[in-house]
Amino acid sequence: MGGQFITFEGGEGTGKSTQLGLLSARLRTHGLDVVETREPGGPIRKLLVEGDQDWDPMAEALLHFAARADHLAATVRPALAAGQTVLCDRFADSTMAYQGYAQGLGRKTVEDIYALVVGDLKPDLTLILDLPIETGLERAIRRDIDETRYERMGPEFHEILREAFRDIAEQEPDRCVLIDANHPVDTVHEAIWVVVQDRLGLS
Amino acid sequence: MGGQFITFEGGEGTGKSTQLGLLSARLRTHGLDVVETREPGGPIRKLLVEGDQDWDPMAEALLHFAARADHLAATVRPALAAGQTVLCDRFADSTMAYQGYAQGLGRKTVEDIYALVVGDLKPDLTLILDLPIETGLERAIRRDIDETRYERMGPEFHEILREAFRDIAEQEPDRCVLIDANHPVDTVHEAIWVVVQDRLGLS
Repeated sequence: MGGQFITFEGGEGTGKSTQLGLLSARLRTHGLDVVETREPGGPIRKLLVEGDQDWDPMAEALLHFAARADHLAATVRPALAAGQTVLCDRFADSTMAYQGYAQGLGRKTVEDIYALVVGDLKPDLTLILDLPIETGLERAIRRDIDETRYERMGPEFHEILREAFRDIAEQEPDRCVLIDANHPVDTVHEAIWVVVQDRLGLS
Repeated sequence: MGGQFITFEGGEGTGKSTQLGLLSARLRTHGLDVVETREPGGPIRKLLVEGDQDWDPMAEALLHFAARADHLAATVRPALAAGQTVLCDRFADSTMAYQGYAQGLGRKTVEDIYALVVGDLKPDLTLILDLPIETGLERAIRRDIDETRYERMGPEFHEILREAFRDIAEQEPDRCVLIDANHPVDTVHEAIWVVVQDRLGLS
């Protein structure tokens, strides 16, 4: 049997990386073989996150899916096949929220690219961290010396993004769980742990 | 009425850039407003042509289409809409030949990505320059101090590529014309000129 694929989603500064690290450590104490990873990775990350080019939204979505295709082939699929638990910081819901909703490419186009590139594979569980945008952006900016390209986009962009993630959670309740991230780190972790225990049948 | 979209295709060292320049100059003497461009462009070119990463073929095709989406939106579509003649050094047939045929992604997948990203737009004329691979690679290597990533691939790769371009020409005879590039530059140019005059109704 293959391993479980768990993705963390949400806007800037919602605590995805922190929560991923905490969940990883806890799963390991339960004896699971965990792989921590993130998207976008590799040289494409530089173009998308650190660059300042104004991409056409379709080009931007394709760049994300290019990084994803590589990441799936090199990391995610082999790990799942080996029975490992894969925790991934951002996956296709981010492309849906950022390019599909906030940059106007539309749900259908992103779904069509997903079907072509990813096929039938889906996360077993997606944790969507939800936070008022002021709190998230403040955290994100405090964390970085330089703001990244997405953080520089205005508050309207981030408000649409938040609504997009909430909408995605609502549309796929079997896969997605919305987590209220406006609490101390440990409280959020415990909320995530309850969900993961339940979904993975851990005790 | 929109302008004409002419693409140059073929393996390494077949003379695409040289012939594009010659055709451009000649079209200008006939009073046409010509735009010369090439793919892949921008920062994605660096990843694909100058890099040495071993991409998953799907990732590589998506990177090419990402560059293409940007190039179409920023350059090709506005120029065609303004009635300009666009001459483009490589376009989607290169992705079909390199990733679809030579790297094994398959015709159908590349066609599906094309339909999603490019939609109904097609070149009005595609000139496919054909040359024995030894001659082409020799020319390509002589031209560059450093071999590019695609040039470093072995002779079998380039042989498949040549057959791929010939097959593409055969499958779409209304759009594509195979040009024997194993002649002096001027002879090849004259052959191209005959085709272009005919297709564009120039005299």
